[in-house]
Amino acid sequence: MGSGLDQLREVLGEVSDLQEAIRVLLWDQETYLPAGGFEGRGAVLSTLGRRAHDLFVSDQVTRQLEAAEAEVSSLDFDSDEASLVRVTRRDQERERRIPSELVGEMAEASTAAAPVWREAREKSDYAMFAPHLARNVELSLRRAEAIGFESRPFDALLFTEPGMTTSQLEVIFVGLKEAIVPLVKKIAAKADAVDASCLQGDFPEGPQLGFVNTVIKSLGYSFEQGRMDISTHPFMIGMNPGDVRLTNRVSRDLLTMAIFGGIHESGHGIYGQGISAALARTPLWEGASNGVHESQSRLYENLIGRSRPFWKHWFGELQALFPKQLAKVDAEGFYRAVNRVAPSLIRVEADEVTYNLHILLRFEIENDLLEGRLRVEDVPDAWNAKMVEYLGVEPPNAAEGSLQDIHWSFAGELASFPAYSLGNLISAQLLAAIRKDLPDLDDQVEAGEFGPLLGWLRERVHRHGRKFTPAELLLRVTGQELDARYWVAYAERKFGELYGLN
Amino acid sequence: MGSGLDQLREVLGEVSDLQEAIRVLLWDQETYLPAGGFEGRGAVLSTLGRRAHDLFVSDQVTRQLEAAEAEVSSLDFDSDEASLVRVTRRDQERERRIPSELVGEMAEASTAAAPVWREAREKSDYAMFAPHLARNVELSLRRAEAIGFESRPFDALLFTEPGMTTSQLEVIFVGLKEAIVPLVKKIAAKADAVDASCLQGDFPEGPQLGFVNTVIKSLGYSFEQGRMDISTHPFMIGMNPGDVRLTNRVSRDLLTMAIFGGIHESGHGIYGQGISAALARTPLWEGASNGVHESQSRLYENLIGRSRPFWKHWFGELQALFPKQLAKVDAEGFYRAVNRVAPSLIRVEADEVTYNLHILLRFEIENDLLEGRLRVEDVPDAWNAKMVEYLGVEPPNAAEGSLQDIHWSFAGELASFPAYSLGNLISAQLLAAIRKDLPDLDDQVEAGEFGPLLGWLRERVHRHGRKFTPAELLLRVTGQELDARYWVAYAERKFGELYGLN
Repeated sequence: MGSGLDQLREVLGEVSDLQEAIRVLLWDQETYLPAGGFEGRGAVLSTLGRRAHDLFVSDQVTRQLEAAEAEVSSLDFDSDEASLVRVTRRDQERERRIPSELVGEMAEASTAAAPVWREAREKSDYAMFAPHLARNVELSLRRAEAIGFESRPFDALLFTEPGMTTSQLEVIFVGLKEAIVPLVKKIAAKADAVDASCLQGDFPEGPQLGFVNTVIKSLGYSFEQGRMDISTHPFMIGMNPGDVRLTNRVSRDLLTMAIFGGIHESGHGIYGQGISAALARTPLWEGASNGVHESQSRLYENLIGRSRPFWKHWFGELQALFPKQLAKVDAEGFYRAVNRVAPSLIRVEADEVTYNLHILLRFEIENDLLEGRLRVEDVPDAWNAKMVEYLGVEPPNAAEGSLQDIHWSFAGELASFPAYSLGNLISAQLLAAIRKDLPDLDDQVEAGEFGPLLGWLRERVHRHGRKFTPAELLLRVTGQELDARYWVAYAERKFGELYGLN
Repeated sequence: MGSGLDQLREVLGEVSDLQEAIRVLLWDQETYLPAGGFEGRGAVLSTLGRRAHDLFVSDQVTRQLEAAEAEVSSLDFDSDEASLVRVTRRDQERERRIPSELVGEMAEASTAAAPVWREAREKSDYAMFAPHLARNVELSLRRAEAIGFESRPFDALLFTEPGMTTSQLEVIFVGLKEAIVPLVKKIAAKADAVDASCLQGDFPEGPQLGFVNTVIKSLGYSFEQGRMDISTHPFMIGMNPGDVRLTNRVSRDLLTMAIFGGIHESGHGIYGQGISAALARTPLWEGASNGVHESQSRLYENLIGRSRPFWKHWFGELQALFPKQLAKVDAEGFYRAVNRVAPSLIRVEADEVTYNLHILLRFEIENDLLEGRLRVEDVPDAWNAKMVEYLGVEPPNAAEGSLQDIHWSFAGELASFPAYSLGNLISAQLLAAIRKDLPDLDDQVEAGEFGPLLGWLRERVHRHGRKFTPAELLLRVTGQELDARYWVAYAERKFGELYGLN
């Protein structure tokens, strides 16, 4: 490769180093940072964020991009080099529109909001957090305006899903709502068909966490290139190819929280650990989009982790850890229990069927905030009204309502929720393709052989990192554009069988 | 204050932010970084180090320093502003001489050396670590040459002890050796006077660590502004005034390791937490020197933590945690046990009397390496020979010999050991001054009242941070220059009484 590309790689490496430092600091902030450290941390994140931004948008990078573009013009569409240049160009053109002061303000506001969100949620005190949400809306709008949009600010913030628009999302959600609401009603009429009482009880945390770690290791998550800690809200954060970390949380009373939280995050982690190391220290060392990332966590959490063959394999080991607590249930009963459908308050504990309605609610509220139809102080009322309308349940307090998610403490980063629903849809579409190539998938899962699935995902999805847009990737891998009918068919088949609806 | 100083503060704040990020990354590296993460981490530390360095030595800072100097020229010597300018000037003149490539190489070499040192120590394989020590010597020499020195490279590296020279240190060590060697001999003749067998046994780690945390909290270390983790080699690292962290290690067989390691690090931590928050994000938010820092850890660890009144207060609580294991000893017996003098192999486990000889040995070896009298491959032999000569014991392997300290994995940073002995000397001189102001100190310690001591140190030492040189600080606080006779008198009195030598 010529020297333009080499120089570009070098400076992108420095940008990446600064961003990696930010990620370590964010991980630290959510895991081990002492209470007194939050105040000082904001300035550090702000300085690093501004310096990474300033370097990335510098005229130097613009010139190197131009030189590199000339060098890669003859290369195949899917070469690392050609992708590096086009993705960097796309990112840089967007970031050049965002003033570095705004980047610094976003970092500071996020750091200021984090401990307040934590305390407000503990105290269920929405008024305490409201100013930080207001600041988030303000910064998100300023960011959207800087990036540019035709009529809907949400479009600008959706750059994390290249190619997706707010209107497309609205169409997708209407379709989902039309499929889910009747399904939920049919299930409600047969609610007694599934008994999930075995999931509640007294389950000491240590064995729970040990079990989860055994499971995710067998799925393919490497603890040599990662680790698992405890945080309020579970997350995955990748520092570099050798250091992709997860967090989890655990409830002594509810067996599913740590298990499915852990499997979910491991899906993200396995993706991160599978990105080609050759892409490290470039903008390509990331998932294709948040939605594609979520497709991996959802695939492992739901399509595999809540499948019958999965629990045929793992239930014995779990029962051996909690012989008394799980005495009255077998693998089939446990499989049914972890798939119980019931409208509930907390998104991250929602079942597969109702989950997308939680996202729809947030998508609508964020759009209403950004487009001025909803005031920050009215969010809890709007939230509760929608919960009643879509799910038929009403949060008794803000902690179980509008304060439940950490996301709104990330200032300037509204519009992040739709990725979760996109992830559900993509995961079902991928699974259909996987089943064509691995017709014995269920037998493999039942035998605890997760290697073939991992190999398929590594080869088709993970290693490419951010080289392809979600649409390109989906077309490459499944031969089709995004199609929500895969997920709807999956849900109707699985839950139809579980609840005897057919 | 005028705008020159304000501008200087702003850019120093950014330098400080980059350095704070480095410190978080270093903490992470020693505590939670997964094995696979070391390789990628080097580049990040290198980038941050170079950027902090480049910004600090920039012409912009030089100009701002000149403007600020004019603004503070009429200010009192000990104002924050005047000190900020003069200390920054001193640092910046030195750092301007060090090429930023060298700073980056030091960071990368340190990161590369860290896991190798860990593994080499585990395997007791000196040859495995030798190339990293050779690289350290090379980088230390290049750094010393860049800083400049007349005849001894060690002088240049001693900038961490402003005002101290290699020759002065040699004089101090000769004096110490002349006092210590006869004292050790007299003690050896009465070795049976102290029985330390109660310290060995089976002490579960959890209660040990709980006890240490109770103790250091009562000494004044705040867990709101800090935390305690486990690492191979205990250390303190301060991120910002609200986040000053400690690490410790614990042995199930040996009761003293965690207790005195923890108290030692808490002395550093209490110092860090006590520096005026007004000095944050400036070069003054640090200890006056490594030696002065060590005086605080030594004061708490030895002069307080190994004193009779201290154990009169704490022994009951410790015994209650380990009633069986400590059944046959009382407070006086425990006090005697933790003060047993016996030449031994490991510096961090050495008693107060022989400790300085461990430092002398390292001081001589480092000088011999830097001045070309010793080859890296001959270090284990030189080490062992000196151990026999000074202490009469010979390491059976490199893990208990030349591989025991983490310090030589910090590339470019030889010359760090003398601070430990300087700390011992300063702590004894400070204690003499403290006793004049707090004649009831022993009664307070026996009553578990550590507030007056903390208040004295906060007011006289901690809050000033790096405003004064060690010599200035000592003169301010004790009215005298550094005088090793305080420590010698302390040691002769304490151990004379303990071993019945008089």
